[in-house]
Amino acid sequence: MQLGDLTTPALIVDAAALESNLAAMAARWPGETLRPHVKAHKTTALAARQAAHGATGFTCATIREVEGMAAAGLGADLLLANEVLDTRRLGRLDARVTVAVDSPETIEAAAAGGVREVLVDVNVGMPRCGCRPDDAGALADRARAAGLTVRGVMGYEGHLQAWPDAEERATLTKTAMELLLAAHRDVGGDVVSGGGTGTSACNPYVTEMQAGSYALMDSAYTAAGVGYVQALHVLGTVVHVSAARPDMPAYAVADVGLKALGMDHGNPTIPGAQVWFCSDEHVTFAADDPVRVGDRVLVIPAHVDPTVAYHDRMHVVRDEEVLETWPVDLRGW
Amino acid sequence: MQLGDLTTPALIVDAAALESNLAAMAARWPGETLRPHVKAHKTTALAARQAAHGATGFTCATIREVEGMAAAGLGADLLLANEVLDTRRLGRLDARVTVAVDSPETIEAAAAGGVREVLVDVNVGMPRCGCRPDDAGALADRARAAGLTVRGVMGYEGHLQAWPDAEERATLTKTAMELLLAAHRDVGGDVVSGGGTGTSACNPYVTEMQAGSYALMDSAYTAAGVGYVQALHVLGTVVHVSAARPDMPAYAVADVGLKALGMDHGNPTIPGAQVWFCSDEHVTFAADDPVRVGDRVLVIPAHVDPTVAYHDRMHVVRDEEVLETWPVDLRGW
Repeated sequence: MQLGDLTTPALIVDAAALESNLAAMAARWPGETLRPHVKAHKTTALAARQAAHGATGFTCATIREVEGMAAAGLGADLLLANEVLDTRRLGRLDARVTVAVDSPETIEAAAAGGVREVLVDVNVGMPRCGCRPDDAGALADRARAAGLTVRGVMGYEGHLQAWPDAEERATLTKTAMELLLAAHRDVGGDVVSGGGTGTSACNPYVTEMQAGSYALMDSAYTAAGVGYVQALHVLGTVVHVSAARPDMPAYAVADVGLKALGMDHGNPTIPGAQVWFCSDEHVTFAADDPVRVGDRVLVIPAHVDPTVAYHDRMHVVRDEEVLETWPVDLRGW
Repeated sequence: MQLGDLTTPALIVDAAALESNLAAMAARWPGETLRPHVKAHKTTALAARQAAHGATGFTCATIREVEGMAAAGLGADLLLANEVLDTRRLGRLDARVTVAVDSPETIEAAAAGGVREVLVDVNVGMPRCGCRPDDAGALADRARAAGLTVRGVMGYEGHLQAWPDAEERATLTKTAMELLLAAHRDVGGDVVSGGGTGTSACNPYVTEMQAGSYALMDSAYTAAGVGYVQALHVLGTVVHVSAARPDMPAYAVADVGLKALGMDHGNPTIPGAQVWFCSDEHVTFAADDPVRVGDRVLVIPAHVDPTVAYHDRMHVVRDEEVLETWPVDLRGW
């Protein structure tokens, strides 16, 4: 199949860029030191490629992701790096499942649901989940008393991932990880899990790196200069062009809209064009060079994770050839 | 099933609010004068409720929506109110399908794909699809020469839907529709199709109203004061609470994040709380009254259409009871 045969909008992945990203991260974080986060791509076939580059464990954000990875035979060491209360589905899985806990309630839920291993999730500066660093030791004791194995700690410096200045990002990451390491001394265990694509080059403090976006990339991470190359685009078709008029410059419209793009980081970008706005099924843009109805256009999402979650498949391409089509099979909850 | 049994995040629809909205719009636009837009809910079961209130035709934004409506037996009069080039799937359907055209290319595509009926799409002020009003007559001639039946015109005043001042909205809608009516004089046919929830009370110029959002509603339309009541929420579970500290006020975290919410209109709202920010699977918020881990929370999306597109089902509820679960079966392309 050729690129031109695809129904648009379509997620397309540049095979060479993907391999380059996977190899680069695996070189920096080899083998089990990398625990790729599948929330960024929600695709077991892509996770299998990450396993081929040496990863043995994976990070998940939802119970559905854990279930799907287990069903795909990638369940050797799955971390649900998120607090959940309805743990019944996790205890049933034929996989090694470790769950983040940060409160008495999440510890009780893990034990009641048949989960056997946990990490104590520590807040390292972002107002989201995670216990206060000072409380980590007591929570670990409580988890052990409930019969759970405490493998260590996790802490996600999410507020620093796209910090624009790389030197400041490194300094702030060190400060955040000092909180995590202090908590680790109270908790014990082998694992200090954390990090993301944005801090993967400046966080030597963790024993395992949870990066995910590096595989596909988006314009927000590219703007932050974290390395890795844009591997994901949304392919669209130009369905309308409007010539310049006295009251309106020329513009074009392609069929890549709000339901094909995660919009929380703002508008997507189109190389060689200025994006004006998106509607449900359209992006309106002004192109530097003339475009025609029927032309194909490559749209770069501002945020990869919520973009992928809108699509049920992604196409791996080399130049104009579609090499493989992968189901985005970890969507939903 | 009870609300408490649902896996979160979950789309829930208040049965009484939905019926109230459907009845109110059907009273204003009875029978075939209302052509509900299914893009807002992507759910054939909900479209069937709209048909029960008198609608005979429907508006679609994608080929997939047209296919799904036809397969659900709701294909008596489907308008694809969008420009498409790959029309082969449309010509095959056992349904009455009318397609918007605004250029020689889209006319050729319609004819080549076996489409039989079209509307000429006229730009009435929003820089998206639609021909210049002055070009509508010539395009209609061209369509007829290509063997297509031209049913009339459509024009969507999308830029006015959420205009904050109702009087200005009415004045601007009149101006926009004068463009459409002028084009209609050149085009002929019985149909003048347009409008949306925001202009449904101030657009008496069209012969059929394309409103969609009124059925479920969102916080952006509510803020614009267009009437209709909030029928859709995303149900979440509080997974973390953080007590106030010297450097941080108290906050809570629920499992309703960027992949459960359309974010182009900004953050969702939570009654009785201030939303701080959303991450992939979380919303961080400060509640007026204390919340506990395990509490359920109702989140109001800022934009209903891209919110629904993330979910594979919606649950119709009355108080705490889940009456029905409807597949969101018109997703994808």
